[in-house]
Amino acid sequence: MAHFAKRMKSMENSAYVVKKLFGAMNDPEIISFGGGAPAREALPVDIVREISNDIMRMDSRGIEALQYGPVMGTADLREVVVNELLAPKGVEAKAENIIITGGGMEAINLLCQLFIDPDDIILVESPSFVHSVEVFEMFQAKCIPVSMDENGMMTDDLEEKIIKYKPKMVYVIPTFQNPTGITLSQERRKKIAELGSKYDKIILEDDPYRDIRYSGSDLLPIKSFDKTGHTILANSFSKIFSAGSRLGYIYANDEITEKLFDAKTATNSHTAMLPQILCAEFFKRGYYPAHHKMICDLYRERRDVMLECIDKFFPEGTKRTTPDGGLFVWVELPENINTTELLKESVSNPDVKVAFVAGEGFYAEGGGKGRNCMRISYGGVTPEKIRIGAEKLGRLISSKVK
Amino acid sequence: MAHFAKRMKSMENSAYVVKKLFGAMNDPEIISFGGGAPAREALPVDIVREISNDIMRMDSRGIEALQYGPVMGTADLREVVVNELLAPKGVEAKAENIIITGGGMEAINLLCQLFIDPDDIILVESPSFVHSVEVFEMFQAKCIPVSMDENGMMTDDLEEKIIKYKPKMVYVIPTFQNPTGITLSQERRKKIAELGSKYDKIILEDDPYRDIRYSGSDLLPIKSFDKTGHTILANSFSKIFSAGSRLGYIYANDEITEKLFDAKTATNSHTAMLPQILCAEFFKRGYYPAHHKMICDLYRERRDVMLECIDKFFPEGTKRTTPDGGLFVWVELPENINTTELLKESVSNPDVKVAFVAGEGFYAEGGGKGRNCMRISYGGVTPEKIRIGAEKLGRLISSKVK
Repeated sequence: MAHFAKRMKSMENSAYVVKKLFGAMNDPEIISFGGGAPAREALPVDIVREISNDIMRMDSRGIEALQYGPVMGTADLREVVVNELLAPKGVEAKAENIIITGGGMEAINLLCQLFIDPDDIILVESPSFVHSVEVFEMFQAKCIPVSMDENGMMTDDLEEKIIKYKPKMVYVIPTFQNPTGITLSQERRKKIAELGSKYDKIILEDDPYRDIRYSGSDLLPIKSFDKTGHTILANSFSKIFSAGSRLGYIYANDEITEKLFDAKTATNSHTAMLPQILCAEFFKRGYYPAHHKMICDLYRERRDVMLECIDKFFPEGTKRTTPDGGLFVWVELPENINTTELLKESVSNPDVKVAFVAGEGFYAEGGGKGRNCMRISYGGVTPEKIRIGAEKLGRLISSKVK
Repeated sequence: MAHFAKRMKSMENSAYVVKKLFGAMNDPEIISFGGGAPAREALPVDIVREISNDIMRMDSRGIEALQYGPVMGTADLREVVVNELLAPKGVEAKAENIIITGGGMEAINLLCQLFIDPDDIILVESPSFVHSVEVFEMFQAKCIPVSMDENGMMTDDLEEKIIKYKPKMVYVIPTFQNPTGITLSQERRKKIAELGSKYDKIILEDDPYRDIRYSGSDLLPIKSFDKTGHTILANSFSKIFSAGSRLGYIYANDEITEKLFDAKTATNSHTAMLPQILCAEFFKRGYYPAHHKMICDLYRERRDVMLECIDKFFPEGTKRTTPDGGLFVWVELPENINTTELLKESVSNPDVKVAFVAGEGFYAEGGGKGRNCMRISYGGVTPEKIRIGAEKLGRLISSKVK
């Protein structure tokens, strides 16, 4: 009976992928390289306990936590973003230009509310993050893929496609990209900011993994090269503080920030207060540097083990990326292997029981591209289980090679 | 330079109202009858402190609070909704049909995502809640007002307008309505559910005040009369637990719930975990009944004082509603008084410094309707300040009567 809006049609395929993903994560027998969740061990439970006990002792903070708060987010957390997360990366922002969002996903959603009319074009990396593409499709945008190589989105192809398709927006995940783990080079970061200015296009820089770098050297955000306000920086606290707190932020110019106020008001009034207070205190009390070192060490070990296992257990002809940070490695298997089929067997075969995400869904262009690829997430799995899971998966894959 | 989506145009007028409202709330010298925030004294700070200290002591709960959670909300909180909030009100629901949202506002937003295409018609009460109308307008819907009397939305007018305008949705706030404080009669509740079924229209029942009843007797929700799944119940924890926690819920049929999963995923993945855990424990540990009694007593006193002061200090020719619960009373002043003008003076005149919300903005029909009306919120103001503020405001109004 229900007559749904046109936008809901777009969700019909992709939502299936998500549900399966979440489903697999909850089966305790499965070793899941599927999700993008941070490691259990990377969650600062003890620190949050201490802060929350302390905060709630103060009546005024308790009331602050439970009463309506500012649409843009708490002043404290916006200051933390400016001083602790942006300034050290070469981005000079004012707190008035920061809005706190319900995680990185909500940042993407709010920016679509601001900019996307039905049939607008968004240029995305090929492959790109499937959940963002889902949001774009829910806003009835058309996603056009831009080629990538080992240095990220190819700026020649980008410029051609900006000219050809007149997009509303260019969506880039520059650092340890989801799903490939690839990092956009410094030179291309500068170029992309310049293309945004030159062609009057919004560059949406979605950079949730950038702070989990455990090898190689830091690069400046695209936003740091932006002289005209065309680049918008979206980020998340999910990987550096807590995913369940649903905290993210957007840094944009005055004109855009003012509209974000409106869109946020009409979405959910503001982000939950207690998570904002706890997160701001986590930084203000100086817990972040040691915690940050701990999680980088933890993920570095997991990456090293995973890459070693792929090289050892996956069949000849396998290619993979070498991420300098983040949670993902992208694997290209021999041509004849269909990873969507492989996943079904890999999850259900009692001798394997290993999950990953099949590559096809990450390609906006469809047509079977990425059919022999897979995203492997090592962030949330202990080194012991990585070894067991990768060996089993590698054995299954090897049995399929013709 | 920024080329915003068409939907953002709709926000240009109404957002101003909101900003001013929030602005006024933060000026400590102003006695504000403007906001809809719960009383400071109604926030269970001590209880939440105790629960949070206890919860965070358990490592598994701490991890649950900080890790990604289920799209639909925690199982605990969904059970609380079913058993503690719906069952006692004659609504038999299953937890699978509940989704936890980022406050009541997000519930409205998600349902617009599901149902509203540009140019769709939504029937709303005249007057209706200005922030919901803002969301409807952001989705490029057209709001058509339905007449109200002292028993709420008039069902004859509703049926006529359903036939005439073929709306996508009917939006009703049945209990202690925002802005009027009026309650929809039982008979009309039944009739509205039937009209939804008969004409195949979505009835969106937004009922955030219903649990703060402090006089009169309980009525059944519209949803309890719905036999076809056309009524969707949206509610909020803001008034009975905590506004800053941004928690609300939707109860809908299977088909709609499945789409809500998709829309929530594409909005912000899920609602923040720690507020959900604390709220569920608040109910499961049995704190709600005593807390509920306390807040009802508190708001009853404030209502009584406010109504007494309006009757005493406002000029002859003033009409007002008599709310049996909630936070608002609606006041109609003598015809010649323009409350939008009055508000400017009332807020800025150093001898007054009292805020309220001018009536005009609550009427979707525009054209100056409600120009002599005002919404007065007594919920967040102490009885002492209600007396001072209402006297000052009454004196200012009296000085304007011709």
